[in-house]
Amino acid sequence: MRPLYYEDGVLKLLDQTKLPAETVWHEYRTCEQVAEAIRNMIVRGAPAIGVTAAYGMVLGANAVETKDKNEFFAQIKQMAEVMKNTRPTAVNLFWAVDRIVKTAYENRNRSIEEIKSTILEEARRMDREDVENNRRIGEFGNRLIKSGNTILTHCNAGSLATCDYGTALGVIRAAHEAGKKVRVYADETRPYLQGARLTAYELMQDGIPVTLICDNMAGYFMQKGEIDCCIVGADRIAANGDTANKIGTYTIAVLAKEHNIPFYVAAPTSTIDFDIATGDEIVIEERDHREVTHIGNIRLAPEGVDVKNPAFDVTPNRYITAIITEKGILYPPFTESIKRLREE
Amino acid sequence: MRPLYYEDGVLKLLDQTKLPAETVWHEYRTCEQVAEAIRNMIVRGAPAIGVTAAYGMVLGANAVETKDKNEFFAQIKQMAEVMKNTRPTAVNLFWAVDRIVKTAYENRNRSIEEIKSTILEEARRMDREDVENNRRIGEFGNRLIKSGNTILTHCNAGSLATCDYGTALGVIRAAHEAGKKVRVYADETRPYLQGARLTAYELMQDGIPVTLICDNMAGYFMQKGEIDCCIVGADRIAANGDTANKIGTYTIAVLAKEHNIPFYVAAPTSTIDFDIATGDEIVIEERDHREVTHIGNIRLAPEGVDVKNPAFDVTPNRYITAIITEKGILYPPFTESIKRLREE
Repeated sequence: MRPLYYEDGVLKLLDQTKLPAETVWHEYRTCEQVAEAIRNMIVRGAPAIGVTAAYGMVLGANAVETKDKNEFFAQIKQMAEVMKNTRPTAVNLFWAVDRIVKTAYENRNRSIEEIKSTILEEARRMDREDVENNRRIGEFGNRLIKSGNTILTHCNAGSLATCDYGTALGVIRAAHEAGKKVRVYADETRPYLQGARLTAYELMQDGIPVTLICDNMAGYFMQKGEIDCCIVGADRIAANGDTANKIGTYTIAVLAKEHNIPFYVAAPTSTIDFDIATGDEIVIEERDHREVTHIGNIRLAPEGVDVKNPAFDVTPNRYITAIITEKGILYPPFTESIKRLREE
Repeated sequence: MRPLYYEDGVLKLLDQTKLPAETVWHEYRTCEQVAEAIRNMIVRGAPAIGVTAAYGMVLGANAVETKDKNEFFAQIKQMAEVMKNTRPTAVNLFWAVDRIVKTAYENRNRSIEEIKSTILEEARRMDREDVENNRRIGEFGNRLIKSGNTILTHCNAGSLATCDYGTALGVIRAAHEAGKKVRVYADETRPYLQGARLTAYELMQDGIPVTLICDNMAGYFMQKGEIDCCIVGADRIAANGDTANKIGTYTIAVLAKEHNIPFYVAAPTSTIDFDIATGDEIVIEERDHREVTHIGNIRLAPEGVDVKNPAFDVTPNRYITAIITEKGILYPPFTESIKRLREE
């Protein structure tokens, strides 16, 4: 279930704001349109945002008509800024845009047309790599899952958050494909309801048993002994393992610790921001208050009410049992295991 | 802001399923109608349910036309069963119904007409007592609040959950009336959104600063040091202090402990069930799955998805800093402080 396709100069995105009620694909032909789609969460999920931004850069580069190479690179840099300003928290976005810009610079001695096709190749490579990485994350993560396990997940770190297969849901898929009996509790994940709308939908399509609960019920089911482990995705991981992910993840991690339940993060290494020492440096996006006060056109709260809507939170490394990447499973102390990973 | 009025043989209930969008009052003339209103959460909140059930018994008793006293008492007992079967968790319901039945029996040597008016007097007394108790809870609780405090609350333990003034919100009101500067973070409280719809509404009406957040954001704001204490209501308190309250309360309590933030329960002593040793004996109501999958007619999740919807959870006594009652503040060990309270 891929949420994005690039074909013949057109990027197609599955509109994730409309799922599961409607399956609508939009077509994008400019870099600016793609930036707007990221901002409005037509596409979401750190890895999917990264590859979408890369294709957005391809569309942008293709539209540059100059034969002046300096002008070409000036425009590439400008597009990169537009793309990076869409959302502040997920690092894969910056990583992907930088990788495209770097590819362009590395090929600066070639013709503009050649640079354009090299950029496209690079975006396609990132797309393929993302799916391969997720399969590998699944293989590694599967080792942590026992048959009969009930797994709690938050938000959607599935196919729809990546180019395919998913990170947290990739681990669950791998366990399911390996013949293990697994069950999932999916937090609905307010305010945007990615758990209710996307995770439940994806897992039902794959025939993996899933039970939808409200975010505030996770503690209850842990207390009753019904959850064996938690697996979530990540939007940015600091060099010490502190992990930014969808708002509510931190609460799940605290609850997991209180109940001695393993808490796993599943993410490609592109989610690791080696440049920041701790999660304190991660910018948390504050989104539109209407996400909290309305569902569609139904108002849920009094007019004029003050609202806060942080889209992410940071789970300190001490709450994390392991980080599952495509290069293997990282264990605490994460500062060391992440350092070793970087050195390799 | 009273949610219920009894006048001339009619019980009027403010429809809390429609707030804050619409202010609709319904009139009830039979015991069965009142039971249905409790079941459908037209009225909710443990103390309000209790007094509503008492008035429902009054309506039921008034409708009994027999002159045979045995028949009269048989019907009273039958009504009590109907009323008690509406919702299983809040003990105030059972307490209120039993108190009406006991009043009837204590006056069994009087005429049926006299018994009917004694029952009405008793219901009115419970109504008045509830408001007085809440004022006293407010006075005691106010001692725990400092000016400048930001207080997290969950669900609605306000005027609308009682006959007036509220328990948890009564404490906040008392602090506000005493001139202390207090701010409230209100969890929206999925699935029924009592925080968004009722608590935010009540506090805005009273001019008490309130910020609405999703349930899964409480941990984030505690982590940032923005919450000074938590105050919640209760649906049933066991003899050891274990407290059943709206689903999600337990999670808040775990988070509060993790952040060394005081966690207070505010409830009248009628919420204490002296007959059960621990919270393990409290029945947790499972409500309609549609509460989770829909908002109005908007479907939030895939058709046919499996759902769990426990309406309450139990917070073990070790997470509770103090229980604020109309008779004073109870501190741990609660088994002893509750025992002393009972002996008094």
